[in-house]
Amino acid sequence: MSQRKLRVGMVGGGGPANFFGGPHRRGILMDNSAELTAGALRSNAADSIASAKELYIPRGYPDWQTMMKEETAKPESERIDYVTIVTPNDAHFGPADAASAAGIGVLCEKPLTTTLDEAKRLHATVASKNTPFVVAYTYTGFPMVMLAKELVKDNAIGEVRKVEAWYPQGWLATKLEADGQKQAAWRVDPTKAGASGCGGDIGTHAYEFVRFVAGRNATRVRGRLKTFVPGRALDDDFTVLAELDNGGIATICASQITIGAQNDNGFRISGTTGTLEWSITDHTILKHYAGGKPLQLYRQGAEYGYFPGSIKPYLRLPSGHPEGFHEALANLHRTLEWTIRGRRGENVPTPFPHPGIADGVAGMAFVEAAVASSNQDGAWVKVG
Amino acid sequence: MSQRKLRVGMVGGGGPANFFGGPHRRGILMDNSAELTAGALRSNAADSIASAKELYIPRGYPDWQTMMKEETAKPESERIDYVTIVTPNDAHFGPADAASAAGIGVLCEKPLTTTLDEAKRLHATVASKNTPFVVAYTYTGFPMVMLAKELVKDNAIGEVRKVEAWYPQGWLATKLEADGQKQAAWRVDPTKAGASGCGGDIGTHAYEFVRFVAGRNATRVRGRLKTFVPGRALDDDFTVLAELDNGGIATICASQITIGAQNDNGFRISGTTGTLEWSITDHTILKHYAGGKPLQLYRQGAEYGYFPGSIKPYLRLPSGHPEGFHEALANLHRTLEWTIRGRRGENVPTPFPHPGIADGVAGMAFVEAAVASSNQDGAWVKVG
Amino acid sequence: MSQRKLRVGMVGGGGPANFFGGPHRRGILMDNSAELTAGALRSNAADSIASAKELYIPRGYPDWQTMMKEETAKPESERIDYVTIVTPNDAHFGPADAASAAGIGVLCEKPLTTTLDEAKRLHATVASKNTPFVVAYTYTGFPMVMLAKELVKDNAIGEVRKVEAWYPQGWLATKLEADGQKQAAWRVDPTKAGASGCGGDIGTHAYEFVRFVAGRNATRVRGRLKTFVPGRALDDDFTVLAELDNGGIATICASQITIGAQNDNGFRISGTTGTLEWSITDHTILKHYAGGKPLQLYRQGAEYGYFPGSIKPYLRLPSGHPEGFHEALANLHRTLEWTIRGRRGENVPTPFPHPGIADGVAGMAFVEAAVASSNQDGAWVKVG
Amino acid sequence: MSQRKLRVGMVGGGGPANFFGGPHRRGILMDNSAELTAGALRSNAADSIASAKELYIPRGYPDWQTMMKEETAKPESERIDYVTIVTPNDAHFGPADAASAAGIGVLCEKPLTTTLDEAKRLHATVASKNTPFVVAYTYTGFPMVMLAKELVKDNAIGEVRKVEAWYPQGWLATKLEADGQKQAAWRVDPTKAGASGCGGDIGTHAYEFVRFVAGRNATRVRGRLKTFVPGRALDDDFTVLAELDNGGIATICASQITIGAQNDNGFRISGTTGTLEWSITDHTILKHYAGGKPLQLYRQGAEYGYFPGSIKPYLRLPSGHPEGFHEALANLHRTLEWTIRGRRGENVPTPFPHPGIADGVAGMAFVEAAVASSNQDGAWVKVG
Repeated sequence: MSQRKLRVGMVGGGGPANFFGGPHRRGILMDNSAELTAGALRSNAADSIASAKELYIPRGYPDWQTMMKEETAKPESERIDYVTIVTPNDAHFGPADAASAAGIGVLCEKPLTTTLDEAKRLHATVASKNTPFVVAYTYTGFPMVMLAKELVKDNAIGEVRKVEAWYPQGWLATKLEADGQKQAAWRVDPTKAGASGCGGDIGTHAYEFVRFVAGRNATRVRGRLKTFVPGRALDDDFTVLAELDNGGIATICASQITIGAQNDNGFRISGTTGTLEWSITDHTILKHYAGGKPLQLYRQGAEYGYFPGSIKPYLRLPSGHPEGFHEALANLHRTLEWTIRGRRGENVPTPFPHPGIADGVAGMAFVEAAVASSNQDGAWVKVG
Repeated sequence: MSQRKLRVGMVGGGGPANFFGGPHRRGILMDNSAELTAGALRSNAADSIASAKELYIPRGYPDWQTMMKEETAKPESERIDYVTIVTPNDAHFGPADAASAAGIGVLCEKPLTTTLDEAKRLHATVASKNTPFVVAYTYTGFPMVMLAKELVKDNAIGEVRKVEAWYPQGWLATKLEADGQKQAAWRVDPTKAGASGCGGDIGTHAYEFVRFVAGRNATRVRGRLKTFVPGRALDDDFTVLAELDNGGIATICASQITIGAQNDNGFRISGTTGTLEWSITDHTILKHYAGGKPLQLYRQGAEYGYFPGSIKPYLRLPSGHPEGFHEALANLHRTLEWTIRGRRGENVPTPFPHPGIADGVAGMAFVEAAVASSNQDGAWVKVG
Repeated sequence: MSQRKLRVGMVGGGGPANFFGGPHRRGILMDNSAELTAGALRSNAADSIASAKELYIPRGYPDWQTMMKEETAKPESERIDYVTIVTPNDAHFGPADAASAAGIGVLCEKPLTTTLDEAKRLHATVASKNTPFVVAYTYTGFPMVMLAKELVKDNAIGEVRKVEAWYPQGWLATKLEADGQKQAAWRVDPTKAGASGCGGDIGTHAYEFVRFVAGRNATRVRGRLKTFVPGRALDDDFTVLAELDNGGIATICASQITIGAQNDNGFRISGTTGTLEWSITDHTILKHYAGGKPLQLYRQGAEYGYFPGSIKPYLRLPSGHPEGFHEALANLHRTLEWTIRGRRGENVPTPFPHPGIADGVAGMAFVEAAVASSNQDGAWVKVG
Repeated sequence: MSQRKLRVGMVGGGGPANFFGGPHRRGILMDNSAELTAGALRSNAADSIASAKELYIPRGYPDWQTMMKEETAKPESERIDYVTIVTPNDAHFGPADAASAAGIGVLCEKPLTTTLDEAKRLHATVASKNTPFVVAYTYTGFPMVMLAKELVKDNAIGEVRKVEAWYPQGWLATKLEADGQKQAAWRVDPTKAGASGCGGDIGTHAYEFVRFVAGRNATRVRGRLKTFVPGRALDDDFTVLAELDNGGIATICASQITIGAQNDNGFRISGTTGTLEWSITDHTILKHYAGGKPLQLYRQGAEYGYFPGSIKPYLRLPSGHPEGFHEALANLHRTLEWTIRGRRGENVPTPFPHPGIADGVAGMAFVEAAVASSNQDGAWVKVG
């Protein structure tokens, strides 16, 4: 099929307490078309190099600056093809900007940065080099979410009236960070997470459904950020009402204190002629309501003819063999890979329009507007 | 068991286009403990009398005024024991106030009235006579909703942090009223429905979950009422963010334009130690999440020992024999019946604390505040 | 609509431990078109009369023989129009045969009798008088089951290949009868229940799906009746493999020892071009699979245009207002009522072809063949 | 963690029409602890070598015989550590026996062989060399199935009474093999698939639930194999009733003609004190029913404390991040890997008791007994 495996570098993602490094490595390796070549996996230089060794990553670096310097110095035939950035939010901008400036592709975790200003500067760099760039709004990699996007585009529900996007979790309902849980600790620390905790971490995912699936943008928002757990510095509950650019409305509700909720994001999009509904809790199904007809359930499976050509290459298994989170992540890596390979003239399918740098910027604009509104007791604030 | 069947009068609920008369009659007759004795079933006198005859109601009246006058003139041994009011909203106050003043029990449809002022005046009448009064927040009659109330009271989820209450419908997504659909026509007419369409009709149901189940009140609200269908005089979409009297928050989201949604009300209540969730789409189940334990599903059935004594008398069937909407409605009639019988010294179970006149007033206060807020582009408005 | 309410007599169904009397009374009263006129509600004469009084049934009789005698002696203008028989199995034949012989309509609980021979004799009586007769295969009264029948008939799934019918319960997983639980006691007593416990009580319901919905008959069966609870005289687990009259096959699996199962009957019918699936655990939905198309979910609701004219008159509520077991039972009473009224020339809808005497006989033939097979260690036995 | 990645050889699994090669490769690569080193991927020598190259497998061989010969000739420091066999059934025995004889670990697809005799001979080879051997009963790799096994072992449901195991599919409801669909073609060809089509392909999976989860064996069976699609040489529908070694019973129902069913295997195991139920259609949940208590839903997620130490190392993601089929397959590879590493003294977790050679033999014994029974019109046949 292809000439060689792509070479991937990873920034962050090492260490025993790390969460997202493992899933990204699985996503990268899943289809046997890329390899883990380089890594600056931890904040401490020695740990970083040890971590690379332990993970069978041949080129371990003490930090991302060294990685970028040495990799860009290599001939193209040896250099990494793209980097995956899985650090806490405050450490996205540096490596992302450096890689973008060097024309090395980037798959960056969300939220894109910690401030909208940073995000815009990164956008400028990416634009100037036309760097292949994917933002890890992972849920856009689920095939039924991709199908929803295509159906909206194909007018299956008419004009969008209302988007309800949700993302409840329960894991921060108690003061987990006080026990030294690392995943909790940085997420509730404004210096690492940015101006919003819950909103930045998961509210941005929910908002991306508005953009990616419904194809709409928020023009102004009212935000209600709330901190339920005493002594926490950032919001653990995030409720936003938004007006959309076509006159519709959206509710974006995320929470980290909904005990029992796991990671239950989803959306319902109501249009003038129908409704689409998806939830990760039943993620192989997409519901399509249209007037008085029976409810239609699209089900995931490589054999179903109703998947358009834009999605078919992203399906790996026949129906009933559940794919999941790793495959969704792998799909984002696939899009970046095919973008890179395509530009080189390799024969690959057309990449799906997964979220790129503009979506990352839009997510930051949304969060900043929500924070600003909440700080003004919920006044309307325009989305920058 | 009891001395005689209770005698029930009905106001409204006749005619071929009527919707709620039938369900209430089924609720009244369900347990063979009450009979339909009197009726002023339609707005036209002749139709009203014909309708009573057709429905085997012996004492047909031309209008509710005549019914009240003649019934109160009868000796107590013949008089109706209570009236059920199933007219459009603007015709609740008259008969409810007259019956209350006469000390005749009332089961009144919601919203209680068309204005908060009317509601308060009715409250005064009811209070002065201590009239047995139930407001038809029908979903509080579902046994699993009753169980949720008891669990919250028994501290099963700790202190309430957040209430999410929802009620999407899709039947008004097109301009149904233009086709002469009577149920649609009066609901979108401010002179009949009051200041809010969607909010008054179904938003009040959703709000009652906050009060009835979570045991909390909204102190101030931000409301966003929207009319999606062009040319409609009232809101067909109703989104409210509320602050609660204990510092928690609530979202109350109702809609009539969510195509495919049927009548899908429900709630999720998150507390400091657990979460309860219920939806009418799976109404025989109540979900209880508590920390890291397996999710517990309470299931409906007369044989389950976990129903407290306050609910057991409201269960009719063993598990797996689904009860539904009619039984929920019958439960509200049962509460009114047992209230009446209990006061007479008959041996009946203690009635469950189903919504009464105060809940009807609170519903109106909530809707008026939401309307006022929406009229001010979403400013915070105190709930009166 | 109609001239007068129908007058109904009830045999059995009284007493504090009785289960099915209440649901039938609710079914009879539900639509305000029939009244409870007569009753021989308990096996003891004094109790029987007291029970009628307590239940507001004006004509209480000491036993069904007296009821039949006195009712048939009345002029047609006063006589009961039909009887509902809700006694244990061994007490079906007597009153059913007597009423049938008198030309009084019958709605009889299942299994029809305790032996196939009795069933055939009853059939002869019914046939000779052309008596309106409905057998309470209650689940055929659920509208989505009725819709399934119509879809099969309309060739929506092609030729039937396989029917899977199931009915697990868990309530007899322990020796409940030892504690004096009356519902358990008679069901495990061969003198009252007949030759099969689980098979007669619920296996017959499952088998009726083969006949009613799939439109097929079993020609021969292999039965495996098993008694798991020590010391029980009848089977509490019933597994049957059947060959069908068109060359297809069926599995009919019922059990009373599946702990946690409530009353979970349902079916899946696979044909050459599609599959239909229904379960009481989600009874307002009918699933229709057809090749590579999205799964279609028919949902219950009086407003949906896909219900044929044969079913529409049996729907009471708009979608999302769940009907349930009582309504299903009421639908069987409705069918009997409309049969009776129709013959009298009253203007009523065409009754749906709900199970009649022939289905009752077929159920007994099926159970007897299954028992015979099980007694021969599972040899094939023809269905009589 | 470990010294080096394990080296894996693959037999079969190449070519554009192949199905299971890809999933196994993803399972092998998933955790970055093994690499694809060798392959004899297709039946034609040139294709085989080309396929290895295309898949980035460094040591491509023309056939498995050559692969075995050359690999065993290598020093242990270069040799493959185990082979994965993903050929059609008739090509399992050869490479499995050769690898076992050479002491090279084996992960073999099921059914183990095409005859019980072959299976027993392979068992002897494996036993003589004590070869690490895993049979790809993939569904035993789902964590909730593993949890079910542990709960049964820990007496959570008492003594097992009844096992219901199911596996409906719909993809062979039409004569797909006539269109040259390769996956269909070999599965309905007795020379490649063995004596049973549906039973061997998926009935064996369902039967393994009886052994793996319930911990029981079938002692005798009645089988009903049926071919619904005209002109097909093997069964496409497989129904078995089994007696279990503790006096319980089991039903094992598999089908390939249930239109709309995808790959819907699952089980319900009823014991004297409770019931466990799992279905791949909701595979992150395990239902536990116990008497009158609320239904408990165990949910998958690495953070839940109720997973025993034997399962925890097999969980990759926190709750709500769905794992699926690839992870289940990866878990079987993980068990083989940890078995191999453990024997070498590497520090790895204790492998879970996933199915080995004895389970493969038992599966063949079950299928042969079912076929023999069906050939005798369903007579009881002992399981060898």
